[in-house]
Amino acid sequence: MITDSATLEKVAKSRADTPACDTVVHFDNAGSSLPPRQVVDRVVRHLRREESVGGYIAADEVRDELDDGYATLARLVGARPEEIAITDSATRSWLSLFTAVRWREGDRVLTAAPEYSSNLIAMLSVARELGVSVERVPSTEEGDLDLDGLRAMLDDRVRMVAITHAPSNGGLVQPVERIGEIVADSPALFLVDACQSIGQIPIDFDAVRADALSATGRKFLRAPRGTGFLAVRRSVLDELTPSHVDLASGSIEDSRVRLRDDARRFELFERNVAAVLGLGEAARYYLDAGPQWVHDYVTELAEHLRGLLGELPGVAVTDIGSRRSGIVSFRAGTTPARDLVATLRDRGVHVTVSHASSTPWDMESRGLDELVRASVHHYNTPDEVSRFCEEVASALR
Amino acid sequence: MITDSATLEKVAKSRADTPACDTVVHFDNAGSSLPPRQVVDRVVRHLRREESVGGYIAADEVRDELDDGYATLARLVGARPEEIAITDSATRSWLSLFTAVRWREGDRVLTAAPEYSSNLIAMLSVARELGVSVERVPSTEEGDLDLDGLRAMLDDRVRMVAITHAPSNGGLVQPVERIGEIVADSPALFLVDACQSIGQIPIDFDAVRADALSATGRKFLRAPRGTGFLAVRRSVLDELTPSHVDLASGSIEDSRVRLRDDARRFELFERNVAAVLGLGEAARYYLDAGPQWVHDYVTELAEHLRGLLGELPGVAVTDIGSRRSGIVSFRAGTTPARDLVATLRDRGVHVTVSHASSTPWDMESRGLDELVRASVHHYNTPDEVSRFCEEVASALR
Repeated sequence: MITDSATLEKVAKSRADTPACDTVVHFDNAGSSLPPRQVVDRVVRHLRREESVGGYIAADEVRDELDDGYATLARLVGARPEEIAITDSATRSWLSLFTAVRWREGDRVLTAAPEYSSNLIAMLSVARELGVSVERVPSTEEGDLDLDGLRAMLDDRVRMVAITHAPSNGGLVQPVERIGEIVADSPALFLVDACQSIGQIPIDFDAVRADALSATGRKFLRAPRGTGFLAVRRSVLDELTPSHVDLASGSIEDSRVRLRDDARRFELFERNVAAVLGLGEAARYYLDAGPQWVHDYVTELAEHLRGLLGELPGVAVTDIGSRRSGIVSFRAGTTPARDLVATLRDRGVHVTVSHASSTPWDMESRGLDELVRASVHHYNTPDEVSRFCEEVASALR
Repeated sequence: MITDSATLEKVAKSRADTPACDTVVHFDNAGSSLPPRQVVDRVVRHLRREESVGGYIAADEVRDELDDGYATLARLVGARPEEIAITDSATRSWLSLFTAVRWREGDRVLTAAPEYSSNLIAMLSVARELGVSVERVPSTEEGDLDLDGLRAMLDDRVRMVAITHAPSNGGLVQPVERIGEIVADSPALFLVDACQSIGQIPIDFDAVRADALSATGRKFLRAPRGTGFLAVRRSVLDELTPSHVDLASGSIEDSRVRLRDDARRFELFERNVAAVLGLGEAARYYLDAGPQWVHDYVTELAEHLRGLLGELPGVAVTDIGSRRSGIVSFRAGTTPARDLVATLRDRGVHVTVSHASSTPWDMESRGLDELVRASVHHYNTPDEVSRFCEEVASALR
């Protein structure tokens, strides 16, 4: 599939829209991807307009486009526009939702081993402060969340099941549809962290039966830094009181605060409007590119990368999971990940280090302290994969 | 002073750095100002760099400049770099601090009549949820916070005094130094909202004896939208547990969260790096321009505006306070503020409407539902003030 002519044409278009493809091999889409020029141009155009008329008039002029952004993000995840809040990051989205739950002593939160550290920090803070129990659902041998294990742990005290769709340290795509089916039979809220999946793996809010879903702009969605969004089902809004509220999230009536009855109760008034326009543009670009095609291509290119890497002497691919994402992780013998990443960077090849501190439970349970992470997208090519593997081999020689 | 030659030269430089001065009369610096081209250029240059190498490498390259931003913001308010957290808005800064207090039932919060609605919404939410009492300190006849009234209300149950330095609906500059002196004798935290003062009125963290100070980028500081900062005194950090924390604010040690021991415990990892660079650039620009000169000029220009406006038939200046800011508010007979603002906008003259919903206590107590707000800066001129008053007179004719 990677080399059929329809695919080659699509990839050529993606590359033409991404000027930096001419100069670098960017395999850091799980960190911060290369944005399409359409996105950067949109942001810059708005900044120049703000320079000409000030930020408020410039924002008034794009009100329709901003509204359209909500509709586009909703379409992206199969939600309704009023179920979308735009934020400044995936973590902000996740934290806003998590801290809006009225936690009670004795509540349980279930999560999986490869959960992201920022989420764990929030969970453990609430745990300590309010007497909530944070528990790890076991994993299968392949590394997926163990569905039977989850079923066995669920009871009426489980207030939330919080799962990262595609963990940041490689490979695994959690079976969120099947998890959602199980959680739906319990009173628990189901919160999906789609930070690393949005833009590479199609996701449908209804199919997943999620109550909320958090996502970032800058990774596979190719939007500006400092953007993210949260999808929240309207039926659970009444259970949720955001800790950060302002005149955009509610109003004062008789000395009482009345929160908005849509997802925007999770927004504050002020935001980087130019970046928000870029987020909308990136979402449109991705929908136009074709989420299913992007997914199939990214998945196949990542598998191709895993195959070639696995043949290199001294290299061990460390990905887990029965279904794999576009994030490929590996160790390179005794070479520190940081050194290899620096060497590659000097050669115009971009990958990053995944530290144990980012996904502590998973890394510690596998005895890993750091990994090299290479994450591919639809503007990357099999040729770049070959070049990458040659550079790795040469750096390790 | 407005027309001495040294002043004319400084204003000419400010205007030369602000290309839009050639085409519009921008009196909406209390909404969102015109940024200097240095700020916009810095932001755009970084966005283009992100386009070339991705967001993470681009951020690595400017690490020193980002560090310098903290030092510059610290200098701006007389704090230390480790007392600064950079956020996405003044409201985020204020909310992060306010919700980080471990409120107990029976605690009291004192604030003033012209407090900003977003702050009131947060106060009233906590009040309702946790049994905290939100109380209004009386104002003097001129509209300042009544210092004797404050003294009389302080007791050991007052956990915080939260004051907006320059209220958004015109005129008043609260005597924060004298308030700080009084609060310092009590166990209360003193939180200053400098959203409308930063960039027009010099403020010194020590002189004000504030425990925390929140500020925005986009108003008088002329930084990009979606930026703000919080200054927090290190000595009060132990009392403060932010509700939104991630791997930038703390780390996990033995299943416990250990927060950073500086103000950055109030930051999240992800942010719009380009905008943050713009914030640093704007702060440097302002310090280079000269905060004292800016203040004196803005104050005099605003007084000049008040004088001319007051002579127009049917116009009533509604500013309060014994000391006045660069924010001028007025009513224009029976003409709805919205209509006048729209008419002026069509003529390239930018002002905004201040609604009662933004400063409800003050507006309601004065029987006002809306005002026209004109806010001047150091790139505005006496000629623009004359032109503005002519346009207002013509619109009302």
